Amino acid sequence: MNNTKAVLIARPDGMAKQSDFAIKEEAVREISDGEILIAIKFLSLDPALRGWMNEGTTYIKGVELGTVMRCFGAGEIIQSNHPDYNVGEHVSGLLGAQQFSISDGKGLSKCDLGVGPLSWHLGIMGMPGMTAYFGLLEKGKPVAGETVFVSGAAGVVGSTVGQIAKIKGCRVVGTAGTNAKCKYLLDECGFDAAINYKEEDVEAGIKKHCPDGIHVFYDNVGGPLLDTVLANLGKGARVVICGAISQYNKSPIYGPSNYMKIVTARGYITGIIVFDYIKEYPKAVREISAWMKEGKMKTKEHIEKGIENFPSTLEMLFTGKNFGKLLLEV
Amino acid sequence: MNNTKAVLIARPDGMAKQSDFAIKEEAVREISDGEILIAIKFLSLDPALRGWMNEGTTYIKGVELGTVMRCFGAGEIIQSNHPDYNVGEHVSGLLGAQQFSISDGKGLSKCDLGVGPLSWHLGIMGMPGMTAYFGLLEKGKPVAGETVFVSGAAGVVGSTVGQIAKIKGCRVVGTAGTNAKCKYLLDECGFDAAINYKEEDVEAGIKKHCPDGIHVFYDNVGGPLLDTVLANLGKGARVVICGAISQYNKSPIYGPSNYMKIVTARGYITGIIVFDYIKEYPKAVREISAWMKEGKMKTKEHIEKGIENFPSTLEMLFTGKNFGKLLLEV
Repeated sequence: MNNTKAVLIARPDGMAKQSDFAIKEEAVREISDGEILIAIKFLSLDPALRGWMNEGTTYIKGVELGTVMRCFGAGEIIQSNHPDYNVGEHVSGLLGAQQFSISDGKGLSKCDLGVGPLSWHLGIMGMPGMTAYFGLLEKGKPVAGETVFVSGAAGVVGSTVGQIAKIKGCRVVGTAGTNAKCKYLLDECGFDAAINYKEEDVEAGIKKHCPDGIHVFYDNVGGPLLDTVLANLGKGARVVICGAISQYNKSPIYGPSNYMKIVTARGYITGIIVFDYIKEYPKAVREISAWMKEGKMKTKEHIEKGIENFPSTLEMLFTGKNFGKLLLEV
Repeated sequence: MNNTKAVLIARPDGMAKQSDFAIKEEAVREISDGEILIAIKFLSLDPALRGWMNEGTTYIKGVELGTVMRCFGAGEIIQSNHPDYNVGEHVSGLLGAQQFSISDGKGLSKCDLGVGPLSWHLGIMGMPGMTAYFGLLEKGKPVAGETVFVSGAAGVVGSTVGQIAKIKGCRVVGTAGTNAKCKYLLDECGFDAAINYKEEDVEAGIKKHCPDGIHVFYDNVGGPLLDTVLANLGKGARVVICGAISQYNKSPIYGPSNYMKIVTARGYITGIIVFDYIKEYPKAVREISAWMKEGKMKTKEHIEKGIENFPSTLEMLFTGKNFGKLLLEV
């Protein structure tokens, strides 16, 4: 049995390129005692991958050149020499950009298909959903009646943040880069307003849709948009930095010259590292599952196919070509 | 009796210039019912003045062209038609850059010369001291054993922050722009280390003197130094933005491209607006007075003379030529 995988062969300077990867094939080795073999069904294309292509980041080592690209995935256990894992069970974790993964079980999560299909365990019930849930509720601390503003709102993190904020009784405004994405936010996700940042004046949109200022800003994008929001904060604003996808291919990244607006707003700028909440994931998954079943929450997936398309699919993420949680069906 | 005053006649683009002011003289008018006449003894030259020279700021209207420059001052009441204020009492407040001020008493604070001389009521016991006290204790929340880093440390705010942090059992490191200022921080203010940012590699200094990272950063300076500190935060760091004196003559100001370091540090960036604590000033003044009497805290003043020198004295503040709280004896 052969395993096809995407191997990192070059460190990008700027935008991640298809030529930074090589597709390689090799035989799957026998598993040892305490190991399991997973047939990967879905890979998750996340913004974090760009950082992992660098030599190193502040919180995790970069991927070594010549090795399989680090990547979240979900699949089915097809062989097991591990007492805690049975053939037929589904797991997710850092399985790598490949068809098959051998694991000792460390760092894996079991996926309960009773709460949602396998692909959701990489999206709204996986790391992105958890990032939205804990970032908004634990760091943003939204209060009913407040205005929550989300950048990159049509992504899985952004749309989950917005929908949870609606459930909590907030006014929700988001930005996205196409009219179709804005329509989705309004019609499907229940946002109060959506701003197409490529075609509209974002500041004018904020003045119109956030008359009391922005009380919680959940930022996935960074760049000049962050400055625009900082200039329009409401009293006691909480700015939750989740990511800066507009800046991941740049160095140095854009620094917000309006950072002192947080002083006059009597607010704070903080961030979310989802792994800090790992023990509380099951509670969040149960709550999200209930909201999905009650029809209070939706999710959208964008599924590409074939491990050989991993490099081109990753590119879509940074050019905003995907619409919905970007997955690769292996 | 004549009143000499510094009138704002032009809005600076960049650095505040002497030519932005004109010195004018006019007769002091008779006071009405409910008014007092104050003979100003000291004016306080503060970084905030630069912002007040603009058309407007986020928290206060700019000074109108042709009117006396807004400025904190302290003086003695020499006439009173106000039941709450007696001749011979001392007061401080926004008295304006002039020799005499007529007031209805609103916004004035009485200065108790029993806790410290009049000039201290514009410094360590005035707005700068209160900014240091509440910014550090209420926003920075220092814990004994933590490392507190202060920029602009030789100024009255910075040196007060550092000395309070020492009293609270912290390790204290600061930056200043001359060796004499650094020596003052070490010898007089009890800092554990001082870095001359004009001559030394600040990052190397931080690595050496803050081996566990910076837990509280009290920033008076902004600019590239803010980025350097953000790259060296300790776990759970609190960044308290007080000012950005390196940037007040610039537009747009320097945005910190390392702002996402607050995410991995699991910390937050916030700020201090001292007026929010106005009801708690007396408690802080009593505590600072006690520390001064016990010899746990010192303050340094730089006093220039003559109202006609107001414009040139203001310039000293932004070029770092003063050493100690900058005052003008009228």
